Amino acid sequence: MPDEQRPVTVGELSEQAVLARVFPLLPTARGTLLGPGDDAAVVAAPDGRFVVTTDVLVEDRHFRRAWSTGEDVGHRAAVQNLADVAAMGARPTSLVVSLVVPDDLPVTWVEGLARGLAAASTPVGAGVVGGDLSGGPLVVVAVTAHGDLEGRAPVTRAGARPGDVVALAGEPGRSAGGLAVLTAGRSSAALAEVGPAADEAVARYLRPRSPLAAGPAAALAGASAMLDVSDGLLRDAGRIAAASGVLLDLDEDALAPDVAALAPLAARLGADVRHWVLAGGEDHALLATFPPGTALPAPFRTVGRVRAVDGAGPRVLVGGGEADVAPGWDHFAG
Amino acid sequence: MPDEQRPVTVGELSEQAVLARVFPLLPTARGTLLGPGDDAAVVAAPDGRFVVTTDVLVEDRHFRRAWSTGEDVGHRAAVQNLADVAAMGARPTSLVVSLVVPDDLPVTWVEGLARGLAAASTPVGAGVVGGDLSGGPLVVVAVTAHGDLEGRAPVTRAGARPGDVVALAGEPGRSAGGLAVLTAGRSSAALAEVGPAADEAVARYLRPRSPLAAGPAAALAGASAMLDVSDGLLRDAGRIAAASGVLLDLDEDALAPDVAALAPLAARLGADVRHWVLAGGEDHALLATFPPGTALPAPFRTVGRVRAVDGAGPRVLVGGGEADVAPGWDHFAG
Repeated sequence: MPDEQRPVTVGELSEQAVLARVFPLLPTARGTLLGPGDDAAVVAAPDGRFVVTTDVLVEDRHFRRAWSTGEDVGHRAAVQNLADVAAMGARPTSLVVSLVVPDDLPVTWVEGLARGLAAASTPVGAGVVGGDLSGGPLVVVAVTAHGDLEGRAPVTRAGARPGDVVALAGEPGRSAGGLAVLTAGRSSAALAEVGPAADEAVARYLRPRSPLAAGPAAALAGASAMLDVSDGLLRDAGRIAAASGVLLDLDEDALAPDVAALAPLAARLGADVRHWVLAGGEDHALLATFPPGTALPAPFRTVGRVRAVDGAGPRVLVGGGEADVAPGWDHFAG
Repeated sequence: MPDEQRPVTVGELSEQAVLARVFPLLPTARGTLLGPGDDAAVVAAPDGRFVVTTDVLVEDRHFRRAWSTGEDVGHRAAVQNLADVAAMGARPTSLVVSLVVPDDLPVTWVEGLARGLAAASTPVGAGVVGGDLSGGPLVVVAVTAHGDLEGRAPVTRAGARPGDVVALAGEPGRSAGGLAVLTAGRSSAALAEVGPAADEAVARYLRPRSPLAAGPAAALAGASAMLDVSDGLLRDAGRIAAASGVLLDLDEDALAPDVAALAPLAARLGADVRHWVLAGGEDHALLATFPPGTALPAPFRTVGRVRAVDGAGPRVLVGGGEADVAPGWDHFAG
């Protein structure tokens, strides 16, 4: 192949040259007082506090370049951090990104990453205010996201009280379904008849949709506890139960629409659809508890009830009994 | 070797178990309103703005585990970020850390990293407020640091004006000297006679000393421009020159103490001591410009003068003439 048709790689350019191509693609935000280019950025914190969280994506551990484009990875890296900010009840303001790239990575992949960061951040008004770029043997994307509490108290995992309603914003199980499709091979014969459902699940795995605006809305409505569902409904509900010292009793009937949406796909793949919905990770739904009688902000729906802890300690029940589905995996060990 | 003598590796523990050993070692700070353990942390920003920067260290690119302990790497990861915050004139408040570790890494290495982060952060009152831990094929440490401007304007690279004094806080060349010692082999015969100087240089490479308190002090004193010297004096002075549209004329005599301190070591290694001092990176000194007549805060010392740009454009001169030493390398391409 002639050289002109080979994509330009990051190893062929200086750091400055790569950044010059990426900077114009990054999202900007109103609260950015000083953007990228100096030793550090300056961001407005009108509340007098800021919320901060960090999450890292590692190639071949959290994504494969054969499945995910740069834009997919940028989208996912932004969403998983923005969802953590939203889950505190804060409005996302800004991101910084540390990026490790192999020399043979096409520059277009990095440009795609910037576009993906922008696609996920711009709708909520967050901007990328800084970053660092380094060479390395594989792609690593470490994002730190910040948010503003707008005068509200942060919504932690520890405030759920017996009698509270358990509510979910977002659609669990899609990401697990998409990963199962990719693992089976999208073109496999088993998937031919469920084409659109398979494609939709893959899209939701590659670019999870988190209802980010529902986080501040939940805080305004008086949510007593909240988190981002990244490791599966059962495992993350268990974290609210443990932090609050309560039982979270999930109503499986409330998840029937999710089971129904995914059941044909799961059947084709010989997978357990209840496991996808109850234990599948990385959909970045928001799980919250609200005092009884609260008018739930959209798109929250009731999926259970908080109960007083019994002798067996804080944990998650399903329909009043012990869960018969294993919780989501430990991403570190897995 | 019996199993009991083999160090426990991170791959043998869950993420929770590793974090349980690391959390007690992390530095805490007064401004932390909500620390690690929830979806995100909450940090005080009494100024109504916050400063933020991120930098990543990649194993075998920025450090080698054969040369650097976990404590060394933690120290360096913190200092290089804290120096960026200080170089804006801000007081460091908080760090978050995304860490990638191979399964066979001893847990004690990660504990050392936490101790190194604490050793560098505690003296300036900064705390680690959050993080993420992932597996991967090599160690990657991505740190994001935050600071408070305490009501002052940020000191950018763009404010240097002709007539300003150029001043340096910190000691250039030590890190380059230490890297040269490690590359030659610390035990090599060439280094026997300069033992203490070689050891000191290595120590400064492994744990750079940045005069972090000098950053806010420079801002208070009216610094017109400032940055953290991470890529060498010539290259970083060139960044102030370019951003400000001026010439920075360095007085090499003012660097004589640095040359004298390193000359015997450089001679032993057949290295150019002027290159270490003028172009060596990663000492994290602070380079600033001040209006003429400013009483320089300690430990700043005058190392040059800002001059009006001439026809050849913004750049760095040495003793009024073009520099005869190549600037520091591009860390990404290098």
